[in-house]
Amino acid sequence: MRTAYYISDGTALTAEAFGNALLSMFPVEFQHITRPFIDCEEKAEQVCRQIQQSAATDGEPPLIFHTFVNTQLKQKIISCGGISYDFLEQFVSSVEQQLNVKAQPKTHRTHGVQKNYNFRVDAINYALDNDDGKKLDQLDQADIVLIGVSRTGKTPTSLYLALQYGIKAANYPITDDDDFERLQLPRQLKLQRHKLFGLTLDAQRLHEIRSQRRHGSQYASMQQCRYELQQVENLYRREAVPFIDSTHFSVEEIAAKILAQTNLQRHR
Amino acid sequence: MRTAYYISDGTALTAEAFGNALLSMFPVEFQHITRPFIDCEEKAEQVCRQIQQSAATDGEPPLIFHTFVNTQLKQKIISCGGISYDFLEQFVSSVEQQLNVKAQPKTHRTHGVQKNYNFRVDAINYALDNDDGKKLDQLDQADIVLIGVSRTGKTPTSLYLALQYGIKAANYPITDDDDFERLQLPRQLKLQRHKLFGLTLDAQRLHEIRSQRRHGSQYASMQQCRYELQQVENLYRREAVPFIDSTHFSVEEIAAKILAQTNLQRHR
Repeated sequence: MRTAYYISDGTALTAEAFGNALLSMFPVEFQHITRPFIDCEEKAEQVCRQIQQSAATDGEPPLIFHTFVNTQLKQKIISCGGISYDFLEQFVSSVEQQLNVKAQPKTHRTHGVQKNYNFRVDAINYALDNDDGKKLDQLDQADIVLIGVSRTGKTPTSLYLALQYGIKAANYPITDDDDFERLQLPRQLKLQRHKLFGLTLDAQRLHEIRSQRRHGSQYASMQQCRYELQQVENLYRREAVPFIDSTHFSVEEIAAKILAQTNLQRHR
Repeated sequence: MRTAYYISDGTALTAEAFGNALLSMFPVEFQHITRPFIDCEEKAEQVCRQIQQSAATDGEPPLIFHTFVNTQLKQKIISCGGISYDFLEQFVSSVEQQLNVKAQPKTHRTHGVQKNYNFRVDAINYALDNDDGKKLDQLDQADIVLIGVSRTGKTPTSLYLALQYGIKAANYPITDDDDFERLQLPRQLKLQRHKLFGLTLDAQRLHEIRSQRRHGSQYASMQQCRYELQQVENLYRREAVPFIDSTHFSVEEIAAKILAQTNLQRHR
């Protein structure tokens, strides 16, 4: 199998994002190796030997996706015999021309501690404190309140919104304890109606997910899943709560869809 | 202020990563606008008008970072008068040549539901269940166990490792209740010693963070912070627990450093 390297004097997260996006267009399997924080001659030397080893083992040169600030280390990596992809370099002169400003590369600018950093940590703590309906007295601080029946992805989505975007997301489960026949929004949620966003799933998928947790239970039964989802979707429509069916979507996609629909602002 | 657009027929996460990495090299402020899921003619038209509006308002054309699978929609966006940056196109033919395979672009391949997806959701649930020393009987399932005194970033780091990499991270706080004079690892942690990873902070920074929570308390006092950190760092050294000082690092950087030091495998 051919090898793909992601190398940087920083976290290599940008090199990974870039390389993964590009390679995902090809129906080819790779061995992936990430080497972050290659920030001195000695480490670069060591990576170089590893690249040469991969080339020898694979019988073809590895693809090298890299984002270096230090140009000497970059040259070192380029010279190791891999196929080099440097997407920053490819575009930087065009941006310089457009902005009429010289680039000022610095390590740790992309994924370092930014001025909005505490904001993100606060958002994570908020999501944890307000997970699963734990608290209803802090909903006024929420940017968004996710609702849905058990196991529809509320928690991962809340955490992702916090980590990726610094958005304070609470979530509230519509549970077995609620009377699904006369489903109403709790009073505290009604007060925050403009912040509510519903998640729903395909009944078959929900049945599978719940079965992994409590196999053969009433809770996991197809009938119960179908019933709960039907009732909660009726509730969303009745109360004009926007919602999405997350069956075929990843957390990233659900979060991006929520932002697109609600116009919530990312905290960059 | 000039405007930067991130546009895609998918989540636009790749366009954002790409554009942010590039623009972070310039000491210039932008207004950032992300338009994901531009997957039909009508939406593309609407974005086009928005781009033209930005150009008129700013007095200069916006920068457009885009990743489209649909080439017709891409052409539409390119023709709207912004400065177009299409990093996939720039590199795809070189990769095709290297692999001797034609690219097969599909939407939702980069950030869609992959085969490792349940793995990530399981890791998130694991991190939540095993946050803050809640459980000690599931540590055998952990990929890594973060330890440290209160407020050193264990929880955000655990969640990030789960969300980004599908790694199961438990975390355990060394708290006030422990006898810092005779600091020992709890028995259950000793059994997992090979999985332990310590976090520490600059005392001044810890004092600031704790003061935000409980201003003027003994817990937040400079003296207490310094004492706890000294004792816990001694413990790390005595027990040969690898650790990092996270004072100047973001969650992304801490996570990347942990992976680099431990050789933990990402679940892609």
